[in-house]
Amino acid sequence: MTLLETSATSTPEDLLSPEETYRLDRQHVFHSWSAQGALKPMVITRAEGSYVWDGAGTRFLDLSSQLVNTNVGHQHPKVVAGIVEQAQRLCTIAPQHANAARSKAAQLIAEVAPEGLNTVFFTNGGADAIEHAVRMARLHTGKYKVLSQYRSYHGGTATAVNLTGDPRRWPNDYGSAGAVHFFGPFLYRSHFHATTEAEETERALAHLEQLIAFEGPGTIAAIVLETVPGTAGIMTPPPGYLAGVRELCDRHGIVYIADEVMAGFGRTGRWFAVEHFDVVPDLITFAKGVNSGYVPLGGVVISDAIAATFRDRPFPGGLTYSGHPLACAAAVATITAMHEEKIVENADRIGREVLGPGLRELAERHPVIGEVRGLGVFWALDLVLDRETKEPIAPYGGTSEAMAVLVAACKANGVLPFTNYHRLHVVPPCTVSDAEVREGLAALDAALSTLEAHLGAA
Amino acid sequence: MTLLETSATSTPEDLLSPEETYRLDRQHVFHSWSAQGALKPMVITRAEGSYVWDGAGTRFLDLSSQLVNTNVGHQHPKVVAGIVEQAQRLCTIAPQHANAARSKAAQLIAEVAPEGLNTVFFTNGGADAIEHAVRMARLHTGKYKVLSQYRSYHGGTATAVNLTGDPRRWPNDYGSAGAVHFFGPFLYRSHFHATTEAEETERALAHLEQLIAFEGPGTIAAIVLETVPGTAGIMTPPPGYLAGVRELCDRHGIVYIADEVMAGFGRTGRWFAVEHFDVVPDLITFAKGVNSGYVPLGGVVISDAIAATFRDRPFPGGLTYSGHPLACAAAVATITAMHEEKIVENADRIGREVLGPGLRELAERHPVIGEVRGLGVFWALDLVLDRETKEPIAPYGGTSEAMAVLVAACKANGVLPFTNYHRLHVVPPCTVSDAEVREGLAALDAALSTLEAHLGAA
Ligand SMILES: Cc1ncc(COP(=O)(O)O)c(C=O)c1O
Ligand SMILES: Cc1ncc(COP(=O)(O)O)c(C=O)c1O
Repeated sequence: MTLLETSATSTPEDLLSPEETYRLDRQHVFHSWSAQGALKPMVITRAEGSYVWDGAGTRFLDLSSQLVNTNVGHQHPKVVAGIVEQAQRLCTIAPQHANAARSKAAQLIAEVAPEGLNTVFFTNGGADAIEHAVRMARLHTGKYKVLSQYRSYHGGTATAVNLTGDPRRWPNDYGSAGAVHFFGPFLYRSHFHATTEAEETERALAHLEQLIAFEGPGTIAAIVLETVPGTAGIMTPPPGYLAGVRELCDRHGIVYIADEVMAGFGRTGRWFAVEHFDVVPDLITFAKGVNSGYVPLGGVVISDAIAATFRDRPFPGGLTYSGHPLACAAAVATITAMHEEKIVENADRIGREVLGPGLRELAERHPVIGEVRGLGVFWALDLVLDRETKEPIAPYGGTSEAMAVLVAACKANGVLPFTNYHRLHVVPPCTVSDAEVREGLAALDAALSTLEAHLGAA
Repeated sequence: MTLLETSATSTPEDLLSPEETYRLDRQHVFHSWSAQGALKPMVITRAEGSYVWDGAGTRFLDLSSQLVNTNVGHQHPKVVAGIVEQAQRLCTIAPQHANAARSKAAQLIAEVAPEGLNTVFFTNGGADAIEHAVRMARLHTGKYKVLSQYRSYHGGTATAVNLTGDPRRWPNDYGSAGAVHFFGPFLYRSHFHATTEAEETERALAHLEQLIAFEGPGTIAAIVLETVPGTAGIMTPPPGYLAGVRELCDRHGIVYIADEVMAGFGRTGRWFAVEHFDVVPDLITFAKGVNSGYVPLGGVVISDAIAATFRDRPFPGGLTYSGHPLACAAAVATITAMHEEKIVENADRIGREVLGPGLRELAERHPVIGEVRGLGVFWALDLVLDRETKEPIAPYGGTSEAMAVLVAACKANGVLPFTNYHRLHVVPPCTVSDAEVREGLAALDAALSTLEAHLGAA
């Protein structure tokens, strides 16, 4: 194959019209987390930077980063080039061999991970990262139970979905797989009747400590914690909470697994979100941002102590595509571009100077916004019928006409939102520009007005 | 990015020497299913068609297809072109949208699947395909238990590894997840004291029927069956067995899940191995050959009846990269190339005319070969110390010096083998040529002589 023959003239996009794409989708594609009958998926035919285009050629500002994964935006030229070059060189090599893309990706990930976490086990995505992290923790400790938060999402495979706190666990909960759930800190809707951050931290830690005592510290292998819970609502933990968790883990010989599948690789304005909180977990799960999802990739960064457990003892886990060269080459290109273009720094600055202040300004004018939460390019609007009662505009685990109106208004104003129950998450790429953020804020402003008009009329 | 800028001059392969690749691997990469300390992975720097090259530039005939996944061989130019073009166009789109590569891949897969299976749920690999297939079966039937064979491998996530029959289940078996194991037909090492194929079929079905009766048909959601068990030994089921399983499933309202992660997409000389046996399962899991593993992809092909269950009722499963455009574009290119170049037909002919006869001829001269089994490009040599007692040259779940000698002799003779316990699997790409097969047979001939010399001396 010469380079000329690779000009993009025969991708499925060139061969199928948007109408045909839609027709075949409805005929043959089974979608995640949905009743299939009512789906009307948007056909996406093109994407670049912070934008995507639908079948009619309409452009949308992608405030969802798809599923909060395109941290370097769509079609970043350096990442595309890295994939193209690796594809032409060597697409796939089994996990038992060694390969340059895999070695380099592991080195770059270890470099940006906290001190003392130097080894990487690669998976295909987030759920299998959690599965393998839990496996490591169980064998390392010789214990079995795993604690996780009610407000959490950890993936769709059996262990991961059992650890998940959100309603997606309910129809999949065939025996607990040793999963025990607890309440995390969340001052705005405090489970602990706290009124200050310090009180929330103290009471949430006391709750966890007592739960550990009653479950039996000698039975608990791990605590799995999204550093900043994502899909569940982007609740930045209050000062001292994660340090308290670390201390409880140390005291009881429990492995601390930080799930940074969504929060990692720049999303919070740091390489890993734990950096904000000065804690070092024993295992970090990652996926999404590691290569912006251009090629499926996830994994676990492993502390030296846990890696040592499997020096002479076989690790009983694995998968065909562990350390996939094409996926790893995409990670190498992504991490390199993030360094070169200071993309993590951009996410940090955007959050502090543009997006955070802009959203807070919206909240001043839109009473439907109960709380603005977040950091970096990781923000949630908690939408309420009444700021006093904090009654959400859609029920837990469900949706509402109001939310449907809001989503439609976002699209009508040219932005693609990420929503969950009664929340709107504003999660653009880490590469988003000031002008794009301002464009997004204006669109949200209009959409929130439409929502409020609907609620007022209702 | 212009095309010229994509010339392959800066992949990790160009930047890291084989020595540096090896050093970084040992420092940072955690490998599947192994004690990490003793590993000495081969550095693979290049691959093409049926061959790979190590760091020293030595060429090996890849009789493993890596992990039995490169069904179109390495670096097939049409598949590489499909990936390159899609990468330049649109790498990633979330599962809730529609996209041409995803629509087209689903259509092409439904086209080659048996009648009545028309919908595709995409995953990243084989394990998550099993997880989601089991989820569908449980919700479709309202039942919970899942039956699988002792001689089987279904993947590394919790449900998949619990269903797995091989020793990789043991360290991961925290409660059964409803998994119940049974014995499948395997005349050479018959669990049923049978002496003919007809007797083996009859007795294996009677065993399964009684097991269903004792477990309670009203508790059993699914039977998961590798159509031709792969890693466990490539045991082609005897005539009538799978039809008998289908009949038992129909009688008891049990979903028949055919795991074709390894056996599918040409490996047995058919698109799906079930075609050999004239049965239509309710769900088919696939991965590997669907795009030769060039980009991680797996999935479930779903019968119309099960798809209908989730028309109005939400399917409670999913993953970030379901229907990943780059992975789907690789599947479109792979399936198209397989049609155009009659690759499935080649696998069938090679098996019947060249590889099967060649391996049987080796067995005539090498008493260490207890049995030659297989079809298409999917063959196993069952290696024994004694043809009478059939004592294997390595124990179940373990290895032996003899196996280490054999693997080293294969490599010394220029072939990369796939081994499991006491077996050598001969699983080249479906694109393998007659000359390459003859080259492989000659190398195996020499390696088996080395093994026999070692055993004779021992
Ligand atoms: C925090 C977290 N963990 C795990 C997962 C599961 O990842 P995947 O969908 O790649 O399996 C997700 C997905 O959204 C996530 O947000
Ligand atoms: C029959 C079968 N099912 C499932 C799997 C698991 O696939 P993966 O390794 O992609 O998770 C395999 C892997 O070898 C397999 O052979």
